[in-house]
Amino acid sequence: MNEAPLSAVAAATALNPVLVEVTRGTVVESRHRGSIAVVDAAGRVLHQAGDVAQAVYPRSAIKPLQALLLVESGAADRFGLGDKELALACASHRGESVHTEAVAAWLGRVGLSPGDLECGAHLPYDPKTMEALLRADGQATTLHNNCSGKHSGFVTTALHMGLPLKGYIRPEHPLQQKLYQTIEEMGGESLADTGRGADGCGIPVFGVPLRALARAFARLDDTTGLAPERAAAAARILKAMAAEPVMVSGHGNFVTRVMEVAGDTVRLKSGAEGVYCALLVGRGIGITVKIDDGTGRAAEVAMAAALQRLGAFSPAQEAALSAFLEVPIRNVAGRDVGVVRSAGQPF
Amino acid sequence: MNEAPLSAVAAATALNPVLVEVTRGTVVESRHRGSIAVVDAAGRVLHQAGDVAQAVYPRSAIKPLQALLLVESGAADRFGLGDKELALACASHRGESVHTEAVAAWLGRVGLSPGDLECGAHLPYDPKTMEALLRADGQATTLHNNCSGKHSGFVTTALHMGLPLKGYIRPEHPLQQKLYQTIEEMGGESLADTGRGADGCGIPVFGVPLRALARAFARLDDTTGLAPERAAAAARILKAMAAEPVMVSGHGNFVTRVMEVAGDTVRLKSGAEGVYCALLVGRGIGITVKIDDGTGRAAEVAMAAALQRLGAFSPAQEAALSAFLEVPIRNVAGRDVGVVRSAGQPF
Repeated sequence: MNEAPLSAVAAATALNPVLVEVTRGTVVESRHRGSIAVVDAAGRVLHQAGDVAQAVYPRSAIKPLQALLLVESGAADRFGLGDKELALACASHRGESVHTEAVAAWLGRVGLSPGDLECGAHLPYDPKTMEALLRADGQATTLHNNCSGKHSGFVTTALHMGLPLKGYIRPEHPLQQKLYQTIEEMGGESLADTGRGADGCGIPVFGVPLRALARAFARLDDTTGLAPERAAAAARILKAMAAEPVMVSGHGNFVTRVMEVAGDTVRLKSGAEGVYCALLVGRGIGITVKIDDGTGRAAEVAMAAALQRLGAFSPAQEAALSAFLEVPIRNVAGRDVGVVRSAGQPF
Repeated sequence: MNEAPLSAVAAATALNPVLVEVTRGTVVESRHRGSIAVVDAAGRVLHQAGDVAQAVYPRSAIKPLQALLLVESGAADRFGLGDKELALACASHRGESVHTEAVAAWLGRVGLSPGDLECGAHLPYDPKTMEALLRADGQATTLHNNCSGKHSGFVTTALHMGLPLKGYIRPEHPLQQKLYQTIEEMGGESLADTGRGADGCGIPVFGVPLRALARAFARLDDTTGLAPERAAAAARILKAMAAEPVMVSGHGNFVTRVMEVAGDTVRLKSGAEGVYCALLVGRGIGITVKIDDGTGRAAEVAMAAALQRLGAFSPAQEAALSAFLEVPIRNVAGRDVGVVRSAGQPF
């Protein structure tokens, strides 16, 4: 990876605003810059902070869009997948037993096994589950991989479409080609000259302009102009995320809590390196965040602030989510020593 | 911590340059801004990137300066502390058995116990040690706390000086007052109007201008004008860090590896929220880094680039440290997918 050549898009260093600040005691200790795009299904930028034309790797925030193929290909129907499986296909889960057991059951139903997943194994992200696994002297498996639901969706789709299972994560595999095409269609902008790389779980990543990513999410709700089978697939995915919010992330986490509290009107998904995507259901509005420095704590707070700014929460919902709008920092002794908070109105 | 009032110093949002970039595949995925101060013992700024007048919380990077009191008070001599203990007093260690056993032995020699440390307990930072502890169904103790060596230094000093042990972490405790005074003297700038807060391990933190922090480090080597007992203490601390580099961090980590490879000429110490301090021994030059967004991966690479730029490494040393100058990013499957690297000459 020495001296990787940089595309013109990525080399641009637009100055994005400070979106999030981290306090400790009497002062701000750290600051996070970034950009936010609020876009409708027609591609109109309704609000923005910073550069929304920049191409970013969507990372795991793209999963609800990738799940479209699982449904519109007919694979979900053929194998009788329900809300739980579709929510897992959209998930970066924490490896809790509810996740690993559901993924294992899904694979079994399809006639596949954890060994068919090419995502690799890592310890569960949920600290309590990780600790319990190690105290029981257990081993990390592909089921614990936060992407195991997405990969189960990939192998299920490949199986249904008669595509080779081996190598389904490679950029040249027809499944990945189809997924790329889906994102390009949904975002409505060419991705020919954006970045290319590999994700943490081995699948290809490609750059998507922040505004196109927001538009793609908006179109999951406002399906004007989409083929009927894609529109139907979008509706099923949105229903599944709201019905099974714990499956999309894990107990008590931001993504899950927002959908538990406001699941009739909000869907959202996190991605690595400071990316977040969300959707205001019924309003046809997509929202995307990219934190310049790639920090998750900032992406979460920036998305919470953007949703609040857009009136996504009632006062009661806002109260229920207050610990995500201003996140306490606790030291080892459990004392509150600062907060992570929005640096102001995000747009 | 709601609506913490911000001091004028901290509210300043100077635009610091991009110091570090994170690539994935063909493009830069994330960027880190920050500042670097290169200062001599007289306080002359020799090189700088960004705002070096800004006050930052030094966090754990301040430990070698805090260790001065342990030696100059006479506590180290009275209790026969050697290089190992003095290096641990400067450490953010990874909780490996070499660390916890040495801290336990130190406390035993002084007649104190892990329960006297007010730092709280957390699982070891070293992943292998953490995993082994949990597989053996063990418990985290104050010994595993990365600051347990510093806290052992504090209680040893308090015991020697006849100060109360209980509450030694409180801002009003005479020990903390002495430590504050030491930093202000070494940096040569008033800290009266900088930030105030609590650190992860419970001790007070206070803002120090980045250039003053660099000057304080420079004076550990060029001791012109220091009281003889402080100059002697500085020499002992620098000797201890070079003699016991594993004690200052842990096997294979950046801080330890740099001192293993170039320990005759370089000392360095990491701090939370993107702070690093270093010293070019024999040249009387202090170097401090603060990453705006508080990210450790960037602080490490920025410090490596600054040391390289200042000619701290021979070609052979540079080769030995290459994985820290450009840090590979590996995905779950172990494939190299990007790097963390300096965005260019840092100054």
